[in-house]
Amino acid sequence: MTTPRPLIAVDWGTSSLRGARFDNAGRLRDQREFPRGILTVAAGEFPAVFEQCFGDWLQQDSDGLCLLSGMVGSRQGWQEAPYCPCPAGFAELGQHLLWLQAGRMAIVPGLSVKLSDGLPFDQHDVMRGEDIQIFGALSLTGLENATVVLPGTHSKWAEVAHGRVLRFRSFMTGEVYALLRQHSILSRTLPADAPWHEDGFVHGVRLAQHTPSVLSSLFATRTLALFDTLAAEQHASFLSGLLIGEELRAMAHRQASPILLVGNSTLTQRYQCALQALGLPAQRLGDEATWAGHLALAKHL
Amino acid sequence: MTTPRPLIAVDWGTSSLRGARFDNAGRLRDQREFPRGILTVAAGEFPAVFEQCFGDWLQQDSDGLCLLSGMVGSRQGWQEAPYCPCPAGFAELGQHLLWLQAGRMAIVPGLSVKLSDGLPFDQHDVMRGEDIQIFGALSLTGLENATVVLPGTHSKWAEVAHGRVLRFRSFMTGEVYALLRQHSILSRTLPADAPWHEDGFVHGVRLAQHTPSVLSSLFATRTLALFDTLAAEQHASFLSGLLIGEELRAMAHRQASPILLVGNSTLTQRYQCALQALGLPAQRLGDEATWAGHLALAKHL
Repeated sequence: MTTPRPLIAVDWGTSSLRGARFDNAGRLRDQREFPRGILTVAAGEFPAVFEQCFGDWLQQDSDGLCLLSGMVGSRQGWQEAPYCPCPAGFAELGQHLLWLQAGRMAIVPGLSVKLSDGLPFDQHDVMRGEDIQIFGALSLTGLENATVVLPGTHSKWAEVAHGRVLRFRSFMTGEVYALLRQHSILSRTLPADAPWHEDGFVHGVRLAQHTPSVLSSLFATRTLALFDTLAAEQHASFLSGLLIGEELRAMAHRQASPILLVGNSTLTQRYQCALQALGLPAQRLGDEATWAGHLALAKHL
Repeated sequence: MTTPRPLIAVDWGTSSLRGARFDNAGRLRDQREFPRGILTVAAGEFPAVFEQCFGDWLQQDSDGLCLLSGMVGSRQGWQEAPYCPCPAGFAELGQHLLWLQAGRMAIVPGLSVKLSDGLPFDQHDVMRGEDIQIFGALSLTGLENATVVLPGTHSKWAEVAHGRVLRFRSFMTGEVYALLRQHSILSRTLPADAPWHEDGFVHGVRLAQHTPSVLSSLFATRTLALFDTLAAEQHASFLSGLLIGEELRAMAHRQASPILLVGNSTLTQRYQCALQALGLPAQRLGDEATWAGHLALAKHL
């Protein structure tokens, strides 16, 4: 560990760009957000966009460190930062930083894991951006052993022991939910703006635990309408419960350590509700995990 | 059983209308097909469309029987024929016919099954049209015990013992495949018209057997591209293998009896290939199962 320095933490994702400025005691001085996700930035224009958004901070904290996390390190980002393979803690992440300016400005790589449980070939899973949130969640809770769940378009379940991510698994839950809501035969009978119904949701979570595949339980959303099992305004929540419940069916029984849910509050609330229905307590964390992750990583460099 | 009569068999589905005329010895005399699926027919106009397409047959075979199967018996069809509950064989199906003209013209109802394996509530599955294909497949093969698989937009796996459907389960496999191909993030890296690759397909089938949920294995299609595990032109076949493989993961280990695959040859070939990769032999049948089912049912009335 080195002498504490000011930190400019940047979370540069697919659709948004956020930055936070911390002094050398880790106190937040300023925050900014721009609609400049990497999808809006042409190849080669990342340095200019960064300068435009955070150039003044960099100038003011001339002895500071700048860490960039998220899809900015992907093939479509500023520069591709090769994934840091699991198991990975601060030490491994630090070694795999991609320095844009030596000692001054670096891209935090994502994590990769080789899945091999009985497989006749190598299969990989990856994350980019969630890595820093995981370490932030550990830092905020003081836990060294946990299951960290990051709900979203592509949800992640990470197993952490002794402060290191041992392995993780992604689920295309959010994306599949959106596809089914918008384009499938189910969308015809799902009201567009139904409010959330906890009963319908829990009904879906429970059905998922007793169905061998979500491809089959999804069909249940159709038969609900035929047999009037559940009021129509509950069907969208039921579908959400089926999909989140499917993640739990696949993963929850494996979890012994405390479960941390990290992400936007609407989603983490649903996951907490689903876990509760299975008798599993979980703690929720929000966006604060991202900055906590940057600060914790900076401390370890 | 009654004296053999001529049979007019009609398969009236969502997007097509097909008819076949058999003499009282079960010999095919004529066949017709029209682009008049039930989606093209307004409520109240079913009798007129039927008259237009098959009126002459009905007049010529004045002592004949006419059976209509498929979505024509759904809420959006000619008249809703309540599902025949499983277990169901010819006797039950015969008792549940919806007679439009007594002794002369009837809609064959679909099947329903109440799933209750450990569920804290009733859950139903349904089929309409596949029922007649199942009985046709049994009639053509002479089998009384089998697993009958009907691949499609909503695939069905039916367990048959002593000539009766004991239970079945639907999978939204075909629909989910189409959604992912057309609208998901995966569609961006999948070539639109890639030919079928058996290696990529079997790779997907095998991965599905080692993954606890298809929501997770789907993400593998993304990482394939990142890690160059499989050539890009194989990705669509890999995705198809993942989804069909997921059905097999959920169902195939439960099957002891012979497996019959019924449907269009492209799909049944894929399922046969997937089953073969798991060491399970299967026999394929095509459209002939539909008319065989009508004939077999008529014989039992």
